[in-house]
Amino acid sequence: MQGNYKSFWLSDAMFDECLEVIDQRQLPFVYDTRYLTNTEEVVNAIKNRTVCGAGVVGVVAAFGVYMAAIEVDGDYEALGEKTVLLREACLITRNLAWAVDVMMERLKESQDVIEDARAFAIELSDNEALESQKIAEVGCELIEEMRKKSGKEKINILTHASGGYLAFVDDGAAFAPIYEAKRRGVDVHVWVDETRPRGEGTSLGSWELAQNEIDHTIITDTAAGCLMQRGDVDMVIVSADRVSENGDVVAKVGTYLLALAANDNNIPFYVAFPTSTFDAMTNEVRIEERNGDEVKFVKGVDADGVVRRVRITLDGSAAVSFGFDTTPARLITGLITNRGVCEANYNEIKAKFRG
Amino acid sequence: MQGNYKSFWLSDAMFDECLEVIDQRQLPFVYDTRYLTNTEEVVNAIKNRTVCGAGVVGVVAAFGVYMAAIEVDGDYEALGEKTVLLREACLITRNLAWAVDVMMERLKESQDVIEDARAFAIELSDNEALESQKIAEVGCELIEEMRKKSGKEKINILTHASGGYLAFVDDGAAFAPIYEAKRRGVDVHVWVDETRPRGEGTSLGSWELAQNEIDHTIITDTAAGCLMQRGDVDMVIVSADRVSENGDVVAKVGTYLLALAANDNNIPFYVAFPTSTFDAMTNEVRIEERNGDEVKFVKGVDADGVVRRVRITLDGSAAVSFGFDTTPARLITGLITNRGVCEANYNEIKAKFRG
Repeated sequence: MQGNYKSFWLSDAMFDECLEVIDQRQLPFVYDTRYLTNTEEVVNAIKNRTVCGAGVVGVVAAFGVYMAAIEVDGDYEALGEKTVLLREACLITRNLAWAVDVMMERLKESQDVIEDARAFAIELSDNEALESQKIAEVGCELIEEMRKKSGKEKINILTHASGGYLAFVDDGAAFAPIYEAKRRGVDVHVWVDETRPRGEGTSLGSWELAQNEIDHTIITDTAAGCLMQRGDVDMVIVSADRVSENGDVVAKVGTYLLALAANDNNIPFYVAFPTSTFDAMTNEVRIEERNGDEVKFVKGVDADGVVRRVRITLDGSAAVSFGFDTTPARLITGLITNRGVCEANYNEIKAKFRG
Repeated sequence: MQGNYKSFWLSDAMFDECLEVIDQRQLPFVYDTRYLTNTEEVVNAIKNRTVCGAGVVGVVAAFGVYMAAIEVDGDYEALGEKTVLLREACLITRNLAWAVDVMMERLKESQDVIEDARAFAIELSDNEALESQKIAEVGCELIEEMRKKSGKEKINILTHASGGYLAFVDDGAAFAPIYEAKRRGVDVHVWVDETRPRGEGTSLGSWELAQNEIDHTIITDTAAGCLMQRGDVDMVIVSADRVSENGDVVAKVGTYLLALAANDNNIPFYVAFPTSTFDAMTNEVRIEERNGDEVKFVKGVDADGVVRRVRITLDGSAAVSFGFDTTPARLITGLITNRGVCEANYNEIKAKFRG
């Protein structure tokens, strides 16, 4: 590949080569791209959610290392200092620190840090794309099994947040099996959770599924349990931001509630992720509180097509926001990874990821 | 009492006596009231959610019977036909059919249908207010017990939707124990679930708690599980729209997910409701799909204070909405009723409500 991926790509539109990314802040209302020309712009794009999603921030950060290398004129020591900012642009998403660490490790012995940083970033992204294809195949097998088992013509899959190429590389994680199902002619319908507070399901997930003509319906996060009780959900597939060695999954807030409901209704609950999401180091992640304005303000278009930000609460109301929660391994039917389906427990994970 | 309640009251501002109600559609941005002067206006106020909430639609419908009685000049037969519309204004909420049936039953032998309808409606509302006071006391005991047991100064209560006087009469149902705690000087903090799609927590519940200076914080529906995992919730108290003889509870959509999370974290989960919510007849309720526009559009105020309705999805996106879900009895720690705390099972319920 040549560094051309679905939600970001290398561009020579500017003076130096730079990264062009889909501006996810404007979706689903406006499709636009942004040029990221230096480390600071890459850090800001991750922080302000121009690029948004577990996998994509990792690979974009890898290209950030390439840009940082240009800025420090290929000096490895100086590069180490610059990339701290990249590594800390988001503390929850495992892929980010992973990608920066992989890049720095590989560049340690490099004779041409700039050229190698470019090549390694492309290699890393290409590899993520290959992992996504594998996730697609592995997950699609599960969908096909479900079709056989249930005898249903159309399989209803419930998902949360944005799990496709906007959030990862290529086909993504949770969406990858769905795209593969479409390619194989397996009929699927996707229930897209709104995913408050930021509405990644409404704004990003459903936009991406619409671009790819995947049959889907948006629901509120509150409705998932009710749908499962009615028998309208055959399986749940979500993505992860961090998977620990014991199989616990840190993912978009609300995922834990879905897992509980799936478990209570005997519906298979799968978590799809590439290897870079796996974290052997941490078994506990402190979920931090975020600014309550995420809860209090909502963006949409009015009747005239003007994008507006409106406050849905009283002005003085207190609100707090959470971005993630932890789903315990005991609620997870299986992990859909590029190394196959894996049970969410220490021994299976160890065999697949550290064996 | 004289028919003066907190979210509706008898008014002589118009030609005939009429009902004045808080217009809940405009909260939390604008406080305004509406006059309901005839049956049609009462039916519409329930349908278009000018009055909104399990208990309040019942008592407002009782006053609707009084207004209908004026319209048919006290003719009982004609009144029966008119009140069918009232009874069917909302099919889920048990209190509505209950109130209309109670009114019609009591008016059967009446010599002065108009005067008696007025008196019976006031009596019914007064009785609901008394039940609310009892719920307040019964529920507050549980809060005080929790304070003793946990040793905490401040008890964190998580709630869903709107459970106070906007939704019921007087102190309401889920909010009643909270108001009583404040009166007794028991320190509480309330986590208010947004309650998508209609946002009753954000727009109504938090507005009402703010009026009554109850310490509270708004969260997204997705965050409840995460908060429970962190140990930030001591108990959950929600209201119900319909409670069956076996203890299953039909309530605002999302309640089931809260019950699952509370159960998984060993947090007591209580459902508060007046007798009128109890339904001996039904053990299963079909939860109907509603117009997806509830999911796709959100109302808020812009930076200039103008109330605007904005679309948060792509124009062509499919969406479905659900208003309610069913929480199975096995997940409920106890029912907080005007007849005391009751376990959510057939025998206990039978002893309390049919004994």
